[in-house]
Amino acid sequence: MSTTLPICVSLGPGDPELITLKALRTLQKVDTIYCPATILKEKVVSRSLDIMLEVGIDKQKIELFHVPMSRERSGAEEAYLTVAKRIREDYEDGKEIAFVAEGDCGFYSSAHYISDYLFEMGIDTGRVAGVPAFIACGALARLHIVSQDEVLNVIPTNITTERISAILGQGGTVVIMKLSLHEEAIKKAMQSIPDATFHYFENVGLPEKEIYTSDRDFILSRKFPYFAIMIIKR
Amino acid sequence: MSTTLPICVSLGPGDPELITLKALRTLQKVDTIYCPATILKEKVVSRSLDIMLEVGIDKQKIELFHVPMSRERSGAEEAYLTVAKRIREDYEDGKEIAFVAEGDCGFYSSAHYISDYLFEMGIDTGRVAGVPAFIACGALARLHIVSQDEVLNVIPTNITTERISAILGQGGTVVIMKLSLHEEAIKKAMQSIPDATFHYFENVGLPEKEIYTSDRDFILSRKFPYFAIMIIKR
Repeated sequence: MSTTLPICVSLGPGDPELITLKALRTLQKVDTIYCPATILKEKVVSRSLDIMLEVGIDKQKIELFHVPMSRERSGAEEAYLTVAKRIREDYEDGKEIAFVAEGDCGFYSSAHYISDYLFEMGIDTGRVAGVPAFIACGALARLHIVSQDEVLNVIPTNITTERISAILGQGGTVVIMKLSLHEEAIKKAMQSIPDATFHYFENVGLPEKEIYTSDRDFILSRKFPYFAIMIIKR
Repeated sequence: MSTTLPICVSLGPGDPELITLKALRTLQKVDTIYCPATILKEKVVSRSLDIMLEVGIDKQKIELFHVPMSRERSGAEEAYLTVAKRIREDYEDGKEIAFVAEGDCGFYSSAHYISDYLFEMGIDTGRVAGVPAFIACGALARLHIVSQDEVLNVIPTNITTERISAILGQGGTVVIMKLSLHEEAIKKAMQSIPDATFHYFENVGLPEKEIYTSDRDFILSRKFPYFAIMIIKR
């Protein structure tokens, strides 16, 4: 049995420099790092892996695991269970283990499946906090995401014009993640709420691919990818 | 005129190791760093300064400025205006300047007063994102702050039992900052909502002073300090 609990390490929003010192030192110290990857057009894609390689983590100790991208969650859950079992074996063999997630691993992250499975197996886990993606979006746009008495609402589902209006009317800011799932509802809201600013972000943290705009015509004509984010303020 | 814009650097929630690489490198590189401090019982107190000294930033280039702690904001606003004017002078003299904030400087931070004043003077500013305090609280408690379809609500004011109940009833998580301002309302809510868990945090990131508990009796008997945070989940 290792004397160090398996630890979930947050990698931040994508820019490798936005990893924390604590995350970096933890990744340097552990024996093995489990890292999610997906297969897109027969190519292995992992932004988490890219971040770790850019900050100089030894590739030899990184173990990729494949998470199927699908609305149907059972494949993903099975992948997480398999990883949890491998982490348990390593932990019982005395190894120090990390598993990683983009952004922060407690904030809309799938990494909790792994810690939940480990918990069911009687193994507690540690955590290293990270910068969530919407916080990096705010920095890119130099927005005060929220200040003073403003309410923040992150709404991942059931997005309607009425709901956005109600939140903005109460002096709140709305953050919407996974935009591709809500494209129609958001574009409808944009046409119905003329006095709000819709801040639109794609690929924040990847300098060549990063997009930030609050231009309505651009946003209305854009096909939203899955990982786009919107911050709405009045 | 400097070729580098003055930059607002987020220091993270208090644990010096939760600073990002980008923040650290920016602070190492600039000529002068403006850092907020308050005077408590005739002693200068600055958690931001403590963080920077712990990660090895040269004390010689840190310039403290005093922000009066008061509900009446005019003293604080005057302090921010004075700093903005000093930053402008330094910037025009060709120096590279940073100003710092705990947590993330776009998330309920007073640092925006400085960038707003600079903007009015025709000087744009850069930003480095950081880990907000509630994200560090989630990591300490190993909470899934929000996952899947859960809504996040950060409510800084007008806290009532009805409001908390409504958010929890819709599958949401509630984060409340600056607890001392809402002590009575929160304790009332705790007594009226028996099926929710109230996660209470003080001084997250300061190992000797850190408190995390979800014990109702402890929380109800506690006098909340200003910087305590609550995360409420059902």
